Amino acid sequence: MSARDVTPWLDAARRLADELAPGAAERDRIGGLPVQEVAALRASGLLAFLNPVEYGGAGGGHAQSQTLVRILARADSNAAQILAYHYLLSHNAFLRAHPAQREQLQRQSVAQRWLWGGASNPRDPALVLTPDAADAGQGGGQGFRLNGHKNFASNAAVAERIVSTARLGEVQVLLTIPGEAQGITHGDDWTAFGQRRGVSGSIRFEHVRLERDAVLGLLPGASPAPPTNPLLSLSVPLHQLYFVNLYLGNAEGALRQARHYVLESARPWQTSGVARAADDPYVLEHYGLLDADVQAAAALADRAALDWESAWRQGEGLTPAARDAAAARIYAAKVNSTRTALAATSQIFELLGARATAAHHGFDRYWRNVRTHSLHDPLAYKAREVANHALNGRITSDPLYA
Amino acid sequence: MSARDVTPWLDAARRLADELAPGAAERDRIGGLPVQEVAALRASGLLAFLNPVEYGGAGGGHAQSQTLVRILARADSNAAQILAYHYLLSHNAFLRAHPAQREQLQRQSVAQRWLWGGASNPRDPALVLTPDAADAGQGGGQGFRLNGHKNFASNAAVAERIVSTARLGEVQVLLTIPGEAQGITHGDDWTAFGQRRGVSGSIRFEHVRLERDAVLGLLPGASPAPPTNPLLSLSVPLHQLYFVNLYLGNAEGALRQARHYVLESARPWQTSGVARAADDPYVLEHYGLLDADVQAAAALADRAALDWESAWRQGEGLTPAARDAAAARIYAAKVNSTRTALAATSQIFELLGARATAAHHGFDRYWRNVRTHSLHDPLAYKAREVANHALNGRITSDPLYA
Amino acid sequence: MSARDVTPWLDAARRLADELAPGAAERDRIGGLPVQEVAALRASGLLAFLNPVEYGGAGGGHAQSQTLVRILARADSNAAQILAYHYLLSHNAFLRAHPAQREQLQRQSVAQRWLWGGASNPRDPALVLTPDAADAGQGGGQGFRLNGHKNFASNAAVAERIVSTARLGEVQVLLTIPGEAQGITHGDDWTAFGQRRGVSGSIRFEHVRLERDAVLGLLPGASPAPPTNPLLSLSVPLHQLYFVNLYLGNAEGALRQARHYVLESARPWQTSGVARAADDPYVLEHYGLLDADVQAAAALADRAALDWESAWRQGEGLTPAARDAAAARIYAAKVNSTRTALAATSQIFELLGARATAAHHGFDRYWRNVRTHSLHDPLAYKAREVANHALNGRITSDPLYA
Amino acid sequence: MSARDVTPWLDAARRLADELAPGAAERDRIGGLPVQEVAALRASGLLAFLNPVEYGGAGGGHAQSQTLVRILARADSNAAQILAYHYLLSHNAFLRAHPAQREQLQRQSVAQRWLWGGASNPRDPALVLTPDAADAGQGGGQGFRLNGHKNFASNAAVAERIVSTARLGEVQVLLTIPGEAQGITHGDDWTAFGQRRGVSGSIRFEHVRLERDAVLGLLPGASPAPPTNPLLSLSVPLHQLYFVNLYLGNAEGALRQARHYVLESARPWQTSGVARAADDPYVLEHYGLLDADVQAAAALADRAALDWESAWRQGEGLTPAARDAAAARIYAAKVNSTRTALAATSQIFELLGARATAAHHGFDRYWRNVRTHSLHDPLAYKAREVANHALNGRITSDPLYA
Repeated sequence: MSARDVTPWLDAARRLADELAPGAAERDRIGGLPVQEVAALRASGLLAFLNPVEYGGAGGGHAQSQTLVRILARADSNAAQILAYHYLLSHNAFLRAHPAQREQLQRQSVAQRWLWGGASNPRDPALVLTPDAADAGQGGGQGFRLNGHKNFASNAAVAERIVSTARLGEVQVLLTIPGEAQGITHGDDWTAFGQRRGVSGSIRFEHVRLERDAVLGLLPGASPAPPTNPLLSLSVPLHQLYFVNLYLGNAEGALRQARHYVLESARPWQTSGVARAADDPYVLEHYGLLDADVQAAAALADRAALDWESAWRQGEGLTPAARDAAAARIYAAKVNSTRTALAATSQIFELLGARATAAHHGFDRYWRNVRTHSLHDPLAYKAREVANHALNGRITSDPLYA
Repeated sequence: MSARDVTPWLDAARRLADELAPGAAERDRIGGLPVQEVAALRASGLLAFLNPVEYGGAGGGHAQSQTLVRILARADSNAAQILAYHYLLSHNAFLRAHPAQREQLQRQSVAQRWLWGGASNPRDPALVLTPDAADAGQGGGQGFRLNGHKNFASNAAVAERIVSTARLGEVQVLLTIPGEAQGITHGDDWTAFGQRRGVSGSIRFEHVRLERDAVLGLLPGASPAPPTNPLLSLSVPLHQLYFVNLYLGNAEGALRQARHYVLESARPWQTSGVARAADDPYVLEHYGLLDADVQAAAALADRAALDWESAWRQGEGLTPAARDAAAARIYAAKVNSTRTALAATSQIFELLGARATAAHHGFDRYWRNVRTHSLHDPLAYKAREVANHALNGRITSDPLYA
Repeated sequence: MSARDVTPWLDAARRLADELAPGAAERDRIGGLPVQEVAALRASGLLAFLNPVEYGGAGGGHAQSQTLVRILARADSNAAQILAYHYLLSHNAFLRAHPAQREQLQRQSVAQRWLWGGASNPRDPALVLTPDAADAGQGGGQGFRLNGHKNFASNAAVAERIVSTARLGEVQVLLTIPGEAQGITHGDDWTAFGQRRGVSGSIRFEHVRLERDAVLGLLPGASPAPPTNPLLSLSVPLHQLYFVNLYLGNAEGALRQARHYVLESARPWQTSGVARAADDPYVLEHYGLLDADVQAAAALADRAALDWESAWRQGEGLTPAARDAAAARIYAAKVNSTRTALAATSQIFELLGARATAAHHGFDRYWRNVRTHSLHDPLAYKAREVANHALNGRITSDPLYA
Repeated sequence: MSARDVTPWLDAARRLADELAPGAAERDRIGGLPVQEVAALRASGLLAFLNPVEYGGAGGGHAQSQTLVRILARADSNAAQILAYHYLLSHNAFLRAHPAQREQLQRQSVAQRWLWGGASNPRDPALVLTPDAADAGQGGGQGFRLNGHKNFASNAAVAERIVSTARLGEVQVLLTIPGEAQGITHGDDWTAFGQRRGVSGSIRFEHVRLERDAVLGLLPGASPAPPTNPLLSLSVPLHQLYFVNLYLGNAEGALRQARHYVLESARPWQTSGVARAADDPYVLEHYGLLDADVQAAAALADRAALDWESAWRQGEGLTPAARDAAAARIYAAKVNSTRTALAATSQIFELLGARATAAHHGFDRYWRNVRTHSLHDPLAYKAREVANHALNGRITSDPLYA
């Protein structure tokens, strides 16, 4: 998509952000399923941004969709997370599907405005897929049954399609599961203090019937091993890139709301000698320091997105070295943006004063969101990978879906 | 009180902390009035720690009571805040009362196990005290009526005695108001995201009848001015000293709970190569860094407490220079401990991993507590005072009750 | 200049950096005049990078020249500073010269490979320009005499042309002074602990004869005021942009040398359990943290350079708001890169160990260089301007040549 | 020594600091052997502070001597390092000597005002001690010959007695070597950029004749193993404690000189709106922030010193657990003070402005000193030990002389 063509989508993201902003703090307080957010996302058209034009989508790229996620995260970090995982999980499904499957899934996804979810946490035991015994008598093996439990599942409770992995005998396969399938139970157990409507609770599959075409492909680690290549492994840093923009969106949102509060509500400190909080020397200094760091983090995030896109465009010709260079850039952005967003979302309060802690402002949700989601994987290990690439020419610890 | 005599009180504080710890996260989640905390405080005997032995109290000093507050804050920051304000506000009342009033108030406070509260926020309009017209016909002027509103009141909604200030004609006076007096309304409007049971909402006085002995004394700024002296102004840094220990208690509590979680619950990261989270090189490094800084902050807080006590003991002979030196030391502790506690309570999560964000752990309350209460007054202005004392030999912006 | 056309210039900068790198630490130790650096700069052709093609220059832009300065600063920060000031000071001269003057100066500068210097520190008393009395008798006023002293002068002691400002009666004028003119004395008084061959000592003008064409134009603050416009005032953030890239070059150079040292010379710590320093978990973590922050700072610096270029290209149509937006972006980069470069250049040592402090490595010069030059103007005031722009829509304290 | 008795020694340290302060920056610039510093130390009487009263010493303890080192380090960090190593190395010698040796060494040390040095870097190959063949013919084995090389030696080039370790067959022994012995060569190879007169270059022993009484005792690691106990191993944290106070002295010295400069020399920034630099809001804020952190580090250092003293006083009854607790406290102080001192010595410049970088002020030497010496052992590993003690109840990586 050309830079010009992306403009209406940025506008759509801004409109959606404006629509979601007023109730975001209150919804965060209530928690629960993000029904309103999902409906708004669906209505916005943003769900089809990445789908190819030939299938009715917008034909956007992952570098461009980062900005959509970041714009949304400024106003409603839960909606932004849902959109990010939608992009990530459908990408994973399309990427590994056979061409015919891919086309069908893409068309359905656009036409029916599917929201995609997933359940692939590698730290839980694998789901188990077995040929459906009921088919056997019919001369068949046409279908499967899925059983198992995952402690965390992204978007799954509100998704039309759930991407997951399962063991099928000795083989590990990628699945796409209809959200409404019988035998799926969603745990009401997402109680994290941040991303409270991030709908990331547990999921249980009990004897869930899946048709043959639910199986998208073999995965690395399977035997026989599927053809792996650097291109497929670009999914790993892509996850991290969306996280980067989620955190940055929170940091930018916190600064934006702080700016508004300083101008409209904050009172100058009694010994400041100034008439407006916005003229207080320390308010100005600290806003400037935080803003400068957030701008730097955003600039690196944008550069990392372009690096990812550039690697992706090399297609099958992508070398492991070029893949690792893109990944290392994204991990650098991850390390930098996480620390920057944590600092900004905690330190804005020093510009605002005690009254800004009142619940209805929801100022603390930015920190809670970043603090919670950034624990997805440990920061020190990502820093280690940045250095491993720079010093040792390799990235040593990239789990597949990390 | 000798160091040996304080031991049973430290033990009492530890027992109370152990009693309050298990439900602290849940009570924080619910919010509301700290009824259970106040009952436990009353039962513990800690409320009488500062009262002189001759009136039935323990005869402890403010340096020693800091440790009680800090111990309690590790487990339940709301209870710790209530105790700290109880000490502060009763201190202010006793300090300015006439000797006969003081004795009576001290005796009653101990005998009836009063909890003290206050309503003195200087950023709100002053309360107004007027002679009670009803007395006039009785040849009298024996009583008063109090009217007005304060946006923040500490402990007042659960206190037997509320310390406040009011304008009486041209004069500003200190009052002690029975908590159950007719005409007092407590706003259900304390919605800050931290210290959620800190019971600091608004208070309204409507035609509240007060007897003559409710008036404790004139205050600075009144005309005619009361005799002010450095001793009285030690109340200002004393407030800050209690805040320091409140924040440090939260930081120490966060580290303690983190230690427990790392040892009992945390799983080692998948590429760490170690079998226990407590052997992860980064978990160890970051715990060590945070612990070292918290130890330094605690050492300075303890030194500042001794400096305050030493100044206090100089009594009427206290010079302004000696008072300022003690205040500057406490403000240094305030600056250092606030930054240290904010960092520690946010960064512990990097030792713990994503599952530690589950609500029932309540790990985020440490940061929310420190973040909320530390906005009482701006950090940069306290840093400025540290430097003003060091460079310019003066402290320029000490509001009386800051 | 197109992106493709800039490639050979980047290569030239890299060659020059490679040439200057081996002796940089030793030259820094010795101090003194940067004779070798200036000769190498002259030989490299880089001095003519910004001059228009029509006058024999390369036709490059200020956004592109930032990279040249940064590449050079990685290896030799003194040479980089000299090049940066050469670009800045000749830009100021060409910008304000009459068209005929400008053409002549440009042609001469290219043909004779002039290095430009300056002496304009606004914190010193103004130089004084007076009509040369000797000309009076010849019916003339054709020439002037210049007198005065500046505490700091950039490049002047090794420059062919010195740009300066002077008072001429009630008017403030911009001058270009031949470096070899009679009456100029350079103080041997540049003793700063960083940028030790930055040749920034004092300069004295005693009865220096200047011809009429040495006067380039009136300056703001003069009476009658010259036509000022946002375009001219872009010089102020341009200075800061060069500084940003000077600091970043030092940070990048420090990381690069640290990387080399870790791989080639550092020994693993005795209790690390690894065989190579480059496998130490803490070496990797801290390198990764520093590298990530430097990458972010560089990304913002590059974005700021493009913003400056974009503003510059608007020419006379540049609005004050657009000028301020570009300036605010550059000031954000200044704030971020200064802090990042200071941290990186101090913290690299933690990767290296005690033996890396030996003088011949010259590892400390990166910190000394950044620490020294970044005091050009106070960081807090630049942070204040970032916020003034964001919150108050203005930049309040931009001195003309800051 | 009682607190009262230590007063004259503190005064002596202050007098010595005042004597050494004026030339400290210049001596640092010149480098070379600290002849003047050693002479001044000798004249001050401070060298005998730790020696028992019965042998003519002052009878001070290691907790008290920390303050002497810190006072001195504020003014002259090289002299402070020399004094610290003198205390440490003579302590190690006296501790392991047989009672008769100890008495003789103590008496001689006091009477002849010996300065002690050492050469024990465990990362170099061991020195080799052999029975002197020349004695063999005389029916003897009365003496030894010492050979070998150490890359770093503390104070050795200016010391009367050098403490070292050597291999004697299968045994490792502690030696005390006369500084003037034939066959000792001091490398002129201490070129670190900090502690430039710290006289820590290499030392070579070529066939150095030692009498039998030069051998003080067996060391851990020897076979047969000497009686080791927690008491002996208190030497390890004692080293670190002296380092802590060396760094803090530099931080305090930097703040003190900055205070003086701000009051006497610094000019207010042109857009600050204040008439004195000491009234600039940012100068005040940043001074206050740095001062607060340095005060906290000092408070922890003092507490750690008392913990060490308390452990030491338990004598042979000291348990490993109590020894580790004291060590962990000191390591916490090491971690905290190193980071605090690095920050303070780098950030003071932001209070001072560009002119403060002139060489004659010597402001950079504080950072260079702390940066250099703090690389003695890696900070992250010390943080790891703090956490190992807190989480795992052990300290895992304490080299004997670390």
